[in-house]
Amino acid sequence: MHGLNALFNPEKVAVIGASRSPKKIGNAILHNLIRSRFPGKIIPVNPREEEIAGIKCYPSMTEVPFPVDLGIIVVPEKAVLSVAEDCGKAGCKALIVITAGFKETGSEGLRRERDLVSICRKYNMRMLGPNCVGLMDTHTPLNASFARGFPKEGNISFISQSGAMVLSILDWSFDLDLGFSRFISLGNKADLNEIDFIQSCIEDPYTRAIICYLEDVTDGKRFLEICSEAGRKKPIIVFKAGTSSAGARAASSHTGALAGSNRAYDTAFRQCGIMRAAEMNELFELAVAFAHQPLPQSERVAIITNAGGPAIIATDAVERYGLTISRFEKETIEKLRQNLPPESNFYNPVDVLGDAPEERYRLALETVFSDPNVDNVLVLLCPTAVTEPEETARTLLKIKEKYAEKTLFAVYMGGRTLEAGKKILTGSGIPTFSYPEPAARAVRGMVHFVRHVESSRRQETPVDPGPLDRGAVEEILEQAAADRRLVLLGHECSAVAQAYGIPVSPIILAESAEEAGEISEQIGFPVVLKISSPRISHKSDVGGVAVGLQNRSQVERTFQSMVDRVRRLLPEVPIYGVEVQKMVDSGTEVIIGMSRDVQFGPLIVFGLGGIYVNLLEDVSFRFASRLNTREAIEEMISETKAHTILRGYRGKKKGDIPALIDAVARVARLALDFEEITEMDLNPVRVFPRGLSALDIKITINREK
Amino acid sequence: MHGLNALFNPEKVAVIGASRSPKKIGNAILHNLIRSRFPGKIIPVNPREEEIAGIKCYPSMTEVPFPVDLGIIVVPEKAVLSVAEDCGKAGCKALIVITAGFKETGSEGLRRERDLVSICRKYNMRMLGPNCVGLMDTHTPLNASFARGFPKEGNISFISQSGAMVLSILDWSFDLDLGFSRFISLGNKADLNEIDFIQSCIEDPYTRAIICYLEDVTDGKRFLEICSEAGRKKPIIVFKAGTSSAGARAASSHTGALAGSNRAYDTAFRQCGIMRAAEMNELFELAVAFAHQPLPQSERVAIITNAGGPAIIATDAVERYGLTISRFEKETIEKLRQNLPPESNFYNPVDVLGDAPEERYRLALETVFSDPNVDNVLVLLCPTAVTEPEETARTLLKIKEKYAEKTLFAVYMGGRTLEAGKKILTGSGIPTFSYPEPAARAVRGMVHFVRHVESSRRQETPVDPGPLDRGAVEEILEQAAADRRLVLLGHECSAVAQAYGIPVSPIILAESAEEAGEISEQIGFPVVLKISSPRISHKSDVGGVAVGLQNRSQVERTFQSMVDRVRRLLPEVPIYGVEVQKMVDSGTEVIIGMSRDVQFGPLIVFGLGGIYVNLLEDVSFRFASRLNTREAIEEMISETKAHTILRGYRGKKKGDIPALIDAVARVARLALDFEEITEMDLNPVRVFPRGLSALDIKITINREK
Repeated sequence: MHGLNALFNPEKVAVIGASRSPKKIGNAILHNLIRSRFPGKIIPVNPREEEIAGIKCYPSMTEVPFPVDLGIIVVPEKAVLSVAEDCGKAGCKALIVITAGFKETGSEGLRRERDLVSICRKYNMRMLGPNCVGLMDTHTPLNASFARGFPKEGNISFISQSGAMVLSILDWSFDLDLGFSRFISLGNKADLNEIDFIQSCIEDPYTRAIICYLEDVTDGKRFLEICSEAGRKKPIIVFKAGTSSAGARAASSHTGALAGSNRAYDTAFRQCGIMRAAEMNELFELAVAFAHQPLPQSERVAIITNAGGPAIIATDAVERYGLTISRFEKETIEKLRQNLPPESNFYNPVDVLGDAPEERYRLALETVFSDPNVDNVLVLLCPTAVTEPEETARTLLKIKEKYAEKTLFAVYMGGRTLEAGKKILTGSGIPTFSYPEPAARAVRGMVHFVRHVESSRRQETPVDPGPLDRGAVEEILEQAAADRRLVLLGHECSAVAQAYGIPVSPIILAESAEEAGEISEQIGFPVVLKISSPRISHKSDVGGVAVGLQNRSQVERTFQSMVDRVRRLLPEVPIYGVEVQKMVDSGTEVIIGMSRDVQFGPLIVFGLGGIYVNLLEDVSFRFASRLNTREAIEEMISETKAHTILRGYRGKKKGDIPALIDAVARVARLALDFEEITEMDLNPVRVFPRGLSALDIKITINREK
Repeated sequence: MHGLNALFNPEKVAVIGASRSPKKIGNAILHNLIRSRFPGKIIPVNPREEEIAGIKCYPSMTEVPFPVDLGIIVVPEKAVLSVAEDCGKAGCKALIVITAGFKETGSEGLRRERDLVSICRKYNMRMLGPNCVGLMDTHTPLNASFARGFPKEGNISFISQSGAMVLSILDWSFDLDLGFSRFISLGNKADLNEIDFIQSCIEDPYTRAIICYLEDVTDGKRFLEICSEAGRKKPIIVFKAGTSSAGARAASSHTGALAGSNRAYDTAFRQCGIMRAAEMNELFELAVAFAHQPLPQSERVAIITNAGGPAIIATDAVERYGLTISRFEKETIEKLRQNLPPESNFYNPVDVLGDAPEERYRLALETVFSDPNVDNVLVLLCPTAVTEPEETARTLLKIKEKYAEKTLFAVYMGGRTLEAGKKILTGSGIPTFSYPEPAARAVRGMVHFVRHVESSRRQETPVDPGPLDRGAVEEILEQAAADRRLVLLGHECSAVAQAYGIPVSPIILAESAEEAGEISEQIGFPVVLKISSPRISHKSDVGGVAVGLQNRSQVERTFQSMVDRVRRLLPEVPIYGVEVQKMVDSGTEVIIGMSRDVQFGPLIVFGLGGIYVNLLEDVSFRFASRLNTREAIEEMISETKAHTILRGYRGKKKGDIPALIDAVARVARLALDFEEITEMDLNPVRVFPRGLSALDIKITINREK
């Protein structure tokens, strides 16, 4: 990681393309470096200048007489490759390529970008960009960007695939008095990408929360691997743009990014414990909370308010986000009753009334914080004639200091009257909102992170599918490939599933009554007979289905009468024979499926099965690569309504969940072992009180192995 | 409505309890009246003063020598009744009672409130309050409240059940430079309530949009009646607090409001075309849009941006909210290509690039607005080194003037750098946001309103259930009431449904083989026989079910063998006989149900039926009172997945939707006709290609008629 260190903590930084002209980006970067009080050496490089801003200027990197750690390249795109080469020779460990005109412009640019990466590899340099705004680290301090201004020192790191978003968020940060640790503009991600920077921010001691604006993920499999570790260490909040099909078009036309499907990203983020912001503003709500507040001990919230309406809104939000309203101890209620006016509400939410001055908030907060059932407090304030927003703000800060392990969120519901009070709060790390909902959402986000960390620490049982017959599957897939088929035949699907220990209910075609009788004896009674014809879809309408056949002679007789009847009714239809299937008990029908995502690999689906799968959409998703414990699979199953049915719904018999976990694990294993399988559908899988059986299986393969 | 006119447009206003002391509310109100430049006469009333603020003061209302239109009462609660009496005598047409200490304080307060209403009735006065902040009308102008400040003149009316929310929103309005027509603080709603004020704001020529903060609705049935008309005339946006069970508790403890269930409110608002804000901030997003922008001609949106990331976010939001990205005409694209730099994006979203000055926005917006496929435009701006936020803002305003029929929304993504530009835009009626999502949401809200208005204009077919046998139902309900039963018996349910023309599949108990044979011949073959016993739940497990019986002798034989078999297997179980039911074709199983809401009356439910109703929750709701056309019922049905199945899903046969509409209408009629029916469940109702049949019906009644 020496390259990343050179990016954030260089000793000597060269600006190649530094300029005297205030209109040039090369000028902005140089002055940003100077103004940020970067403690190392700054080297402007420009063949036409002797000095810029009072600093000696070199004509080229090769003429700098000492090794340089970091080269920031702002020369025109045609000159970038040779400058990068020079940087390599000058011993640079890292580059920031600000210059645009690469992959995003078309095939020539793409070639240039590839050459640039080759040069980096050759000299063992890591690179940020090209086509980026640069980066900032407030703790070094270092402003290696052309953004206007430098953020306040703080604990949030922002990683952005959009340069504009860096500028916007920086601009907001001044309004909100929000501190940042790092700003990273990813640009084209030709070398370093979001995974590298997430990893680096996890290691950065100054970063407490990571927020990302992403349009795609460069390497889905590595993302899952690295970020599932990272997501347990620090809160990561991602806004993923390009969720819509139209949005994906905009993404690819703009950055040349290949946008994966929205569902795949959702699943990947979840499996990594990454919180996904639904809207831009949620990025901040959560970041601010994590940056300064302790992690909540529980989901129990107390509310203090000077007005009833806002308290109702806050209570609604607390419930909507799965938090709970604390029940106070008797002593708490008693103490509130002694100290507050008699018309106050002493229960949670505590109403200190519209005429509450600072003092009443102090009394209420002190009392509520000292209650052992309270771990998070929302303080709501509406501007009335006697409100003291600033004094109250200072009081909140002072009391909060005494309760380091509890969280405090302020909701100042108003505009100009409350401005100064809001500034006092946010400037000192109390997340302050204009409405109650985002405050509750922030607590929910924090609780969610705590639970993820906890769950990742629990003991888990790795899935062990035992010995599998890989060879049998290979053989079938090879045969299909040889036949240039993209879909496996029914009996092939059965055989593949059986090779991986997935219980199936095989369907065997009998061409004569005798054969049907024989097959029945082999598979065991009772059996079902169904007429086999490509032209008959509603078999029971023509008497083409017989269930519950108990012995050989019954099977043989039924075969004959069924074939005769159908021939008589539909003389022109070809009949292949009769399908014999062991009769399957009734049970809950579920689906286990797999669809291979281009970014993240095989995506496993589980849910209610049958013909209404797509209509009811009672499904949950996981990537196979991280679906490696029984607990993880159980969690996946438990997210569906199918799970409610399997647990015994309305007097229905329970389903065998351990067997189901096993089957899901085997499907995941199969998908991981055979990359040529692109899709699988086991639907329905019937789950019995003991065991299960896949009644219908479809497997799609890819011709190129 | 003379009373309401006296509230908003009085000629003479008395402040009873006017005070010299700047700390008193009676002082604040007097000065608010004066400062608001109220053009009529102001009369302070206070027995201890000769004059206040240079205006002659009267000792009591009875001594005012001329008639007064509006009395504002701020005396202590004990004095309110006699003062109100005096106001009545002085000829007041309306009162605003600011004083608190009524219903919200307990039973004594409630009694006082009732007496206050009686006095109003006696003198034919209308009353706002008690326990409120007062009201404001910027067009009169009149500030009859104790809020700090007076809003800018504008087109939004705000009706609030929370006084604090009035103060908060007023405070925000100054920040946002947002104009209002009226502010109304409802207080306890002892006389006038939200319905009266919604009606009044619909008639107010200055009001273009109505926003409400509500904790409950006073008269649900009248609300449905009045607001379903109102919702077609002007956009009404409601934030309803108290959605959670915990929130409902907070509501009732605070204002004594009886909170109806969240679903009932949701349904009522929808049926009235009222938009429900999910979060507080949505109230403003929509209000601002409606106040100044024209109603959109379509849902087609164009986006102009100076950065790619925000364009993707905007495109995602446009799609998420069901809007569409306009496809430009060839000429538009050509014109953009001629006028913008070659690296720009000329398709929608139009990217004018990060270095775009005001001029480029002008060119782009002119061109895009002139495209006939564009009805709404979002302009996104990120703060880069060369952005001209203020010049651009002025340009947007200028161009917008030329396209009065198209909407324009600005998204200025940044803080202090863009502040001045934002002010220019919002001050002139261009809704300006900090993120793209709320802009798209605002367009969606407007499109939604336009569609509601359109749909309410279309020709509808009233439902006509034809002659119904009310007498039969009355008899059954009387019998049940006489028996002190709360649940109707199975055959009673069947009879009720049949009396209202709802097709049922009757179940008839046969106690002997002969009887079973006779019944079968009456109802027609094939029939199903089921053993009837209160102790056997899985009838088929004991051979207690026989299907497809084709003739009388088969029925009689089966009766005997079934009873014998079950007696043998379960000798200790009582057997009532055998239930005979005509065999019902397979079909889609749906539920039609009714639950009587205390506020809004009978709530009809439709959805996927069977045992998984509550699990799958594929249901839609409507109040019976407004479910009076075939189109309304069809719309209700079409919101469910059951509808997809009924339309013929995956080769399944279609269901008879006209028959279903008819059945829903009859259930609604039954619920409206018989108030003592509190709940009904027709589940499953099996819908066939022709006709339908209710297989199981449950009806719960109320003992008091």
